[in-house]
Order: sequence, then structure tokens, then C-alpha cells
Amino acid sequence: MTTVREVRLKRRPVGMPQLGDFDVAEAPLAAPGEGEVAVKNLFLSVDPYMRGRMYDRPSYVPPFELGKVMQGGAIGQVTASHDPKFSVGDIVSSMFGWRDAYVAKGEHIQKIETHGLPPQAFLGAAGMPGMTAYFGLLEVADGCKPGETVFVSAATGAVGQIVCQIAKLKGATVVGSAGGAEKVAYLKEIGCDEAIDYRAGDINSALAKAAPKGIDVYFDNVGGDHLAAAMNAARPFARFAECGMIAQYNNEEPAPGPANMALIVGKRLKIRGFIVSDFAARQSEFAKDMAAWISSGQIKTRDTVDEGVDAMPGAFLKLFTGGNFGKMLVKV
Amino acid sequence: MTTVREVRLKRRPVGMPQLGDFDVAEAPLAAPGEGEVAVKNLFLSVDPYMRGRMYDRPSYVPPFELGKVMQGGAIGQVTASHDPKFSVGDIVSSMFGWRDAYVAKGEHIQKIETHGLPPQAFLGAAGMPGMTAYFGLLEVADGCKPGETVFVSAATGAVGQIVCQIAKLKGATVVGSAGGAEKVAYLKEIGCDEAIDYRAGDINSALAKAAPKGIDVYFDNVGGDHLAAAMNAARPFARFAECGMIAQYNNEEPAPGPANMALIVGKRLKIRGFIVSDFAARQSEFAKDMAAWISSGQIKTRDTVDEGVDAMPGAFLKLFTGGNFGKMLVKV
Repeated sequence: MTTVREVRLKRRPVGMPQLGDFDVAEAPLAAPGEGEVAVKNLFLSVDPYMRGRMYDRPSYVPPFELGKVMQGGAIGQVTASHDPKFSVGDIVSSMFGWRDAYVAKGEHIQKIETHGLPPQAFLGAAGMPGMTAYFGLLEVADGCKPGETVFVSAATGAVGQIVCQIAKLKGATVVGSAGGAEKVAYLKEIGCDEAIDYRAGDINSALAKAAPKGIDVYFDNVGGDHLAAAMNAARPFARFAECGMIAQYNNEEPAPGPANMALIVGKRLKIRGFIVSDFAARQSEFAKDMAAWISSGQIKTRDTVDEGVDAMPGAFLKLFTGGNFGKMLVKV
Repeated sequence: MTTVREVRLKRRPVGMPQLGDFDVAEAPLAAPGEGEVAVKNLFLSVDPYMRGRMYDRPSYVPPFELGKVMQGGAIGQVTASHDPKFSVGDIVSSMFGWRDAYVAKGEHIQKIETHGLPPQAFLGAAGMPGMTAYFGLLEVADGCKPGETVFVSAATGAVGQIVCQIAKLKGATVVGSAGGAEKVAYLKEIGCDEAIDYRAGDINSALAKAAPKGIDVYFDNVGGDHLAAAMNAARPFARFAECGMIAQYNNEEPAPGPANMALIVGKRLKIRGFIVSDFAARQSEFAKDMAAWISSGQIKTRDTVDEGVDAMPGAFLKLFTGGNFGKMLVKV
């Protein structure tokens, strides 16, 4: 019997989450039994969708339970195995994050062939955020082609930075928005044609200036003012991939929606929400393309990495204050 | 030289249109020249989309011009023809409404084979509103099938009553909403499984009660509270055909949108705006199906018919006060 350090949900956040909403504690960890595997986590993920699971309400995934260890994406290495499909040293992906080690049945974890990529890539560009970007742009928004303009919000985020680069690979003109001069500079670095600092002024007029002929695709990570601005800037038949609305996740009261909803009719907008797991059966298409793009240097990534399980609550909070740059990770 | 009676746009309405926004006047009408046809109008159409054309702003159709005769759908009969494709007595469809007679080039009017239907049907179920219902439900909302629930707002309107009946023909459960007991009774008469009187209480709780398992399709003619209620009631992957948002057409200030926009992501809603003319190339598919459905009595319609060109402004205003029942027409 050893002990692990883990993060538990102490109380359901009201509005913006706080450090005090979490407990960091030690828990006993039994040795793996028959069919089980022991894993030491290497990298832990924090993601905006986790905020939704902190509410006690029906959704597409059940809410986190109070007093229980949090769940989340993690990349680890097998330290002991009683499942013939896993060997010591294997790199595995799981949802057993927010802790430094765990024991699980082999069927609940996935072995990863890294093909030379660093293991943390499988929490970012080569993992769930990359797959979200890939299917969101190429399927939900019906792709994009040369001559079209793609607008991406939260464009330096884990998902956004990949969307921008896939859109460029497909030949589109790309407009990204992010908060602050450093992020705007990074957007230019990864190939965005126009980069908007949404903190520097009104997003609506900034987008109108950045895309004077309008936009054909909007990849929405933000909702709120960004969504309203995208509807104003949309060309007829524009496609919106609704990936997230981080602007709203911490609202204590429901915030009013865009005041320009009637544009959906006149402009024939197609606005479609999605969840990456809807495309789980097509994971291999994504894995093949993305591995090639990363290996060839066509897709670059930038992460923010904090250290130690105790840093998880703080890392999570950074998602809502813009404190992260690209994928937010914790190295165990 | 004869004279015609015609309705002109006197000033652009602010908020709810008023009778004083229109002028009814006489104008000279020359005899038809080479390639021209003289037509006496039989029925004139008023439609909600006309409100949008009264604003001076860019849209999918140019704004109406001040001081000029209004345009709109009309069914008439040829009284003289200098175009070999038209004969005296032919029934024709045109956009030369809001007047009792006109002269036009043959290429600007369409001859109608009525197949035994009354001519005014081609301004309703067999015309633009019917075609809007048909392609909106069957294409934009991806159709509907037995076991699915379809929610229709403004369900006794010219478009709504056809949507309800096509959805029933396809085997769906249909929930319609309309204002007042008489309209609710009519919805039951045309086969709606549940009918909501939105004036009798909160649309959100009424819809939750009428469709306890949720809705798969929303055909939106109203926007506003109806749209928000439909998002709350939507099942995962529900499809929304955005046909109109009459609740908003007369707003002097933009009204806030639904406060539950984030549901688009979690429920993977597909919300798609459309304009019937987008499907112009497929008119014959619609004409064939609808003629069969009307002839067989599978689709019934109810119209409101006022009389005389002078009644046009008043007939138009009824669209926004619920004063019409089904298709709003004026018999010349």
C-alpha cells in the first residue's frame, strides 16, 4: 500500500472558481490486482469543459461528485501491470487525472504509440484539444477553402491555436482573437493573417476591420460578444462551429444572448454545437493527419506547464483569467 | 390609358407599422407594348418578410423605395397579351402585388397550371409559404421521422400550418403554438398532438409540459422566448430551421437573445437559417408533392381574406397582432 496525492472537489464553485473550492489530500493506493495496471502520471490536463461538470445538473457527462477525486485527462507511464496488454514503461492515456498515480483496469486506459512526439502532446495537439479543433473545423464547420475567411476566438488556447493552423494549411485567411499583446504576437507567429486583441477595444469593430469582406467560418470558443460580432461579420451561408462559450461558464445569472439573432435567418447561418467525443469513432483519421503535421513542423504548439499535483486548482483557474498560453498542463 | 389603384410606402415604419406609413393612390397604366402582358390581380399577399424590406439597410433583398408602389406576391389573370407565351385568361403569379392591375414583360411573370386548385392557393400552401414549410422542414431541419417530436411556432400561420401537417404526414409527433383558444382548437383540427396557447402562460413551461421527452426539431417563425424555450426543450442533436423571428421585426432597440445559448454546445444543436428562394431550383419537387397532398385532402388550409387594394395596409398590420388566421390575403 502506497499513498497518492490527489485533488478533490470540496464545494461547487459559485461564479468564478476559487482555490478554496478544492482540497488537496493524500489517499491510500492498493497494489494492482488481476487485470489491473498501476500508472504514475506524467502530465495532467485542465480544460474549460471541467467547469460545467462542477455544476450539479444534467449534461452530456455526469457532474463531479463532492468530496471525490476530480477526473480529467492524464498521460502516465505504467509502473506495474497485471494485464497482458500493458508492459512496464508503456505510455498511457486516461481520465484518471488530478492525482499523481492510480491503479485501474486495463480496459479503462489507452496505450499510446507516441511516434516520437513528447507524451504531453497527447493532452494537446495530438490529443483531445487537437481532435476538437480538427473535427470542429473540418466536419462541424464543413471545412474551409482558399478564399474563405475563418475567425477563431480564444485563438491561442489549446484548441484555438490548432484551428488557426489547420485553417492556414487548408489555404484560408485566418483571423484570431486573444487577450493581450503577447498572445496577438504569437498568433502572427503561427500564421494568422489578422490578430485581434479583444482587450484593447470593442470586438465587433475590431472584427469588422480585420475581416472587411466578412467571415465564412467562425470557430467559437467564447460565446457572448464574440459570437454576436461573428454574426455581424458573417457572410451569407457562413458556418459556425460552437465548441465552447467560456465567457459564460462562470455566470451566476444567465447572460442575455446576442441581440442580433435575426441575422441567422437573413444570412442563412448554420450554427452547430459539438462535443469531440461525437467523433470518437473517427479518431484514427485525426491521429494520422495530426502526427504528420506535427512531425513536419506544419503545426506548432505552445503550452503552459505548472508543476506538481498541488498546482492543479491554480492551473484550472488560469483558464478563466487568460493566465495560460496554449494548452494548460501540470507536470507531475 | 387606364388607371390602377396602388399602395405606396409613404415613410419607413418605426417599431410597429401604422396605417399612416402607407399611401393608397391612383396611377396611370399604359397599354401593353411589344412583349408585354396586362394583368388584373385577383389576390394579393402580405407576408412578414415585407417588414424587413421597409428598413433601409442591406439584406438579401433590396429595401422598398419610399414613394414607390410596394412589391409583393400576387396572383392575377391576363387581360391582354403581346407575348406569345401568354393568352387572355391565363392565371399568372408575380411580385407585382399591392395594386389591382399591372403591365409587365412576359419574362417577369409566371404562368400557373392550377390543376384544379383555387388561384389563391398559389399564394399559400401551393405557393411561397408552402414551399417555405416544405424545404424548411424536409431539408433545412433534415426532415423528421416517426418517434420524433416537432415543435412549430406561429403554427396557424401561412407557413406554420403547412409545417404541422407535413410533419404529421411524415409520422412525427407535432406540438404547435399559437395565440388564443380559437387558434389552438384549429391546431388540434389539423392534427397537432399538442397545441400551446402562448398567450395563456409562459411558453417555456408550456412546452416542457407539451413535450415532456423533449423536441427533435424546432421550426422557428417567432424567435425570442419561443426560441429560448425550444433550446431548453431540445434533445441532443435537435435541428432548428430558422424561418423567421416575427417577435423581433418591429423592435426599435435590439432585443437580447436567448440566455441559454450555451445549450447549443452541450446539446449539439444545429441551428440553420434559410430563405425559400435558396430552393428555387427545386420548386418542381415541392409543386408535385404539395398538389398531391392538397388534392387528396391530406393538407388542409385556412386563410384570412380581406377585400380591395385599400385593405392591404390593414391586412399587413394583422400579421403582427395575430389578427390573421392562416394565410393573410386580399381579394382584389
